[in-house]
Amino acid sequence: MPKFIFLRKIILVLSLVIYSSSWAFCQHKSPDSLTIAAFYQQALTTEHSYELLRQLTKEVGHRLSGSKSAEEAVVWAQTTMRKLGFDSVWLQPVMVPHWVRGRAEKVVAFTSKDAEPYPLQALALGNSIGGQVSASVVEVPDYRTLDSLGVEGIRGKIVFYNYPMKREYLSTGEAYGDAGTYRVNGPARAARLGAVATLVRSLTTRLDDIPHTGVTRYTPGEPTIPAVAISTLDAEWLHRTLKNNPQLTVSVATYSQMLDSVKSYNVIGELRGREKPDEYLLAGGHLDSWDVGEGAHDDGTGCVQAIEALHLLTSRGYRPRHTIRAVLFMNEENGLAGGLEYARQAARRNERHVAALESDSGGFTPRGFSMSGPQDHLEQLTDWASLFLPYNLHQFEAGGGGADIGPLRASGTTLIGFRPDGQRYFDLHHTREDTLDKVNPRELALGAASIASLLYLLDQTNW
Amino acid sequence: MPKFIFLRKIILVLSLVIYSSSWAFCQHKSPDSLTIAAFYQQALTTEHSYELLRQLTKEVGHRLSGSKSAEEAVVWAQTTMRKLGFDSVWLQPVMVPHWVRGRAEKVVAFTSKDAEPYPLQALALGNSIGGQVSASVVEVPDYRTLDSLGVEGIRGKIVFYNYPMKREYLSTGEAYGDAGTYRVNGPARAARLGAVATLVRSLTTRLDDIPHTGVTRYTPGEPTIPAVAISTLDAEWLHRTLKNNPQLTVSVATYSQMLDSVKSYNVIGELRGREKPDEYLLAGGHLDSWDVGEGAHDDGTGCVQAIEALHLLTSRGYRPRHTIRAVLFMNEENGLAGGLEYARQAARRNERHVAALESDSGGFTPRGFSMSGPQDHLEQLTDWASLFLPYNLHQFEAGGGGADIGPLRASGTTLIGFRPDGQRYFDLHHTREDTLDKVNPRELALGAASIASLLYLLDQTNW
Repeated sequence: MPKFIFLRKIILVLSLVIYSSSWAFCQHKSPDSLTIAAFYQQALTTEHSYELLRQLTKEVGHRLSGSKSAEEAVVWAQTTMRKLGFDSVWLQPVMVPHWVRGRAEKVVAFTSKDAEPYPLQALALGNSIGGQVSASVVEVPDYRTLDSLGVEGIRGKIVFYNYPMKREYLSTGEAYGDAGTYRVNGPARAARLGAVATLVRSLTTRLDDIPHTGVTRYTPGEPTIPAVAISTLDAEWLHRTLKNNPQLTVSVATYSQMLDSVKSYNVIGELRGREKPDEYLLAGGHLDSWDVGEGAHDDGTGCVQAIEALHLLTSRGYRPRHTIRAVLFMNEENGLAGGLEYARQAARRNERHVAALESDSGGFTPRGFSMSGPQDHLEQLTDWASLFLPYNLHQFEAGGGGADIGPLRASGTTLIGFRPDGQRYFDLHHTREDTLDKVNPRELALGAASIASLLYLLDQTNW
Repeated sequence: MPKFIFLRKIILVLSLVIYSSSWAFCQHKSPDSLTIAAFYQQALTTEHSYELLRQLTKEVGHRLSGSKSAEEAVVWAQTTMRKLGFDSVWLQPVMVPHWVRGRAEKVVAFTSKDAEPYPLQALALGNSIGGQVSASVVEVPDYRTLDSLGVEGIRGKIVFYNYPMKREYLSTGEAYGDAGTYRVNGPARAARLGAVATLVRSLTTRLDDIPHTGVTRYTPGEPTIPAVAISTLDAEWLHRTLKNNPQLTVSVATYSQMLDSVKSYNVIGELRGREKPDEYLLAGGHLDSWDVGEGAHDDGTGCVQAIEALHLLTSRGYRPRHTIRAVLFMNEENGLAGGLEYARQAARRNERHVAALESDSGGFTPRGFSMSGPQDHLEQLTDWASLFLPYNLHQFEAGGGGADIGPLRASGTTLIGFRPDGQRYFDLHHTREDTLDKVNPRELALGAASIASLLYLLDQTNW
């Protein structure tokens, strides 16, 4: 059994002190704490971020890069931020890959020649090629086994990666990081050994019938094969059934295609700074989603939290010192074109991005922020932690900011990741289950207020 | 707009210190921290508490005191703890009220004599009498308005309490405490002024079609009237519609009855102490639920966490120093007979209960513990907080333990409440929506491991 694995990062350890009768920082009521209290009050009472999410999930729906609904999401985001009266709202063009699933994939197992077909719950992985093959199946628990089988053990076969996302990780994000390579890189590695298709166990700790899609990457110039995720229950079934039926065959049919890249957009809303208009603070999420469900937690919640954070600032009549942007990035899921283009344009225009924050871990109850940047910035962020304790944010730790803002790191931007509770996220990540009803309006609002509060504090600071 | 209200209690303020590279307390790996890590690992990997909850919710279902299914729940709990090999498992008899809903309640509004009937989503409150009345409606936002209307304004009318559970409370539990009086005491107060029935706005911050039941209390010897909760959307509809249609009438039909009390049971499972068998540590939840939904979060989760906490101790081969009990109390919802009887028997037998812990705030992701007891106990509990930080428990605050263990306070027992995140709880509290699928197996398991860990630490201590 694998060892119990703890978070491995620089972390703030909370030492405990007893205060009596009330929150000490509420008693002295600093202007900052009162401003922050007002953000939380407005967010909780109006639940405006949830109404924005309702529009995005129910009026637009899922929105894979290049799709018609992705373009509708761009229009929705632009219109929404204009209606909210941001100083300026514009579209930043970016070329994005245009992968389409096509007809629904079909994956069927046959335990013997005469057996009834057993359909597996499957979803083609993003970027997968289309193709129809039938072959026997080699189950591999990991790459070591794959490599030891080599070309002679793999050629002509369907490789079934049955590496489970491990429950013993306390952080589901770390468990995802651990298991994710089999989805992202597994098909290419199997193809290199002559496999004809790949089945990947879905990335979730749940045992259910729901396949989880997500990106896979082929190696340029090397073979490509159909790649699908199958549900964890079907992975368990296949594992059991292969033991007694090694002759079992699976037929995989995918109809997906990578079309020509198309022009899409990052959507940017801006509050112009009154003192330092050329220094930028950014809050963002990604507007694209996979082509199943509604892209609610991934990452509709991040988008509406970014919009609502700026809205909370402006509706208090706040005029920021720095220029503050809400950036809804396009194409995080299968290319990161939006994040790369945003950083490229920021560098080209010499826009100094002081700090950038991303919310892309779901819209669940807030736990804190992770951050990377110069030591003095981290210390300042840590000093603010006490202002967030009344709202139950307790994690202020070193760590990543988010995929879309990652490219800004090269120019010295301090990166901050909004960290909600992560226990439920991979129940629905990249599935048909990622829908509005899985989002709690209060949890979502608390996140929006947390982001607004941090933007406000950053804006008070001279870095 | 009401002022933003903060938690008002003695509270532990966390001061923040940066440690580098990993959790400091993981690095020195005390025996306690290793034992606790093993509890969390087992709970997360097996998700055994979720399987127990599946049995209770799907094989038994909801289980109001006195019902057939409550008796099935008693048998299930006894059988389950015996199967798990606890040293002894027994039933503690207790007389419980036997209230039955009877035929489904029917509440219909008529805006005028000829208007189409408008059915309201309603549930009779627990303890409500049955009765059929039609009358005009007086909406009151609060008791002040009720009292100012007096007998002449209320007599012969249906009183509609439209006091919303306030979103601006950060703690939903406190918002529930604030608004709860209108459900618990409102019908009796309206009856005293001559009202013929009461409609109470459901206790939730959501706007939806789901009525929330819960207990109401009549004043002995005073008038009793039918009392129902209506959904928040219907409360909003009624509020709007009454403005233009003050002649609106509502017909209320309830068929509920208070039958004779019946014998039921607390279910007690015990691990006998090897050093101090006559000193007791207790973990509990309540086995009864309302007669809608499945009583999953309220309080199936508390029951299975208590059972699983003892199971985690025994399956590590741990032999406790004190006698440790899992107690599943009967009748928390509409009488507290089980909690009162348990304390009575404990006092009669001179069982010294050192500490008692209850989980009755839902099975959501853990946040910490609240506690009340002597100062030296609170300081000891606080000292343990650092052992729970790796598992994201950060609230160690003074506060209540739980309704069922409350009666033990008189004999000096230190009381501890398990505190999960509360933002989602009142979406489903006392409704048809409180079902297994709303519980996340990992969140539930983290709670069970947290309770096991605290029992373990308490067992190491000489109080």
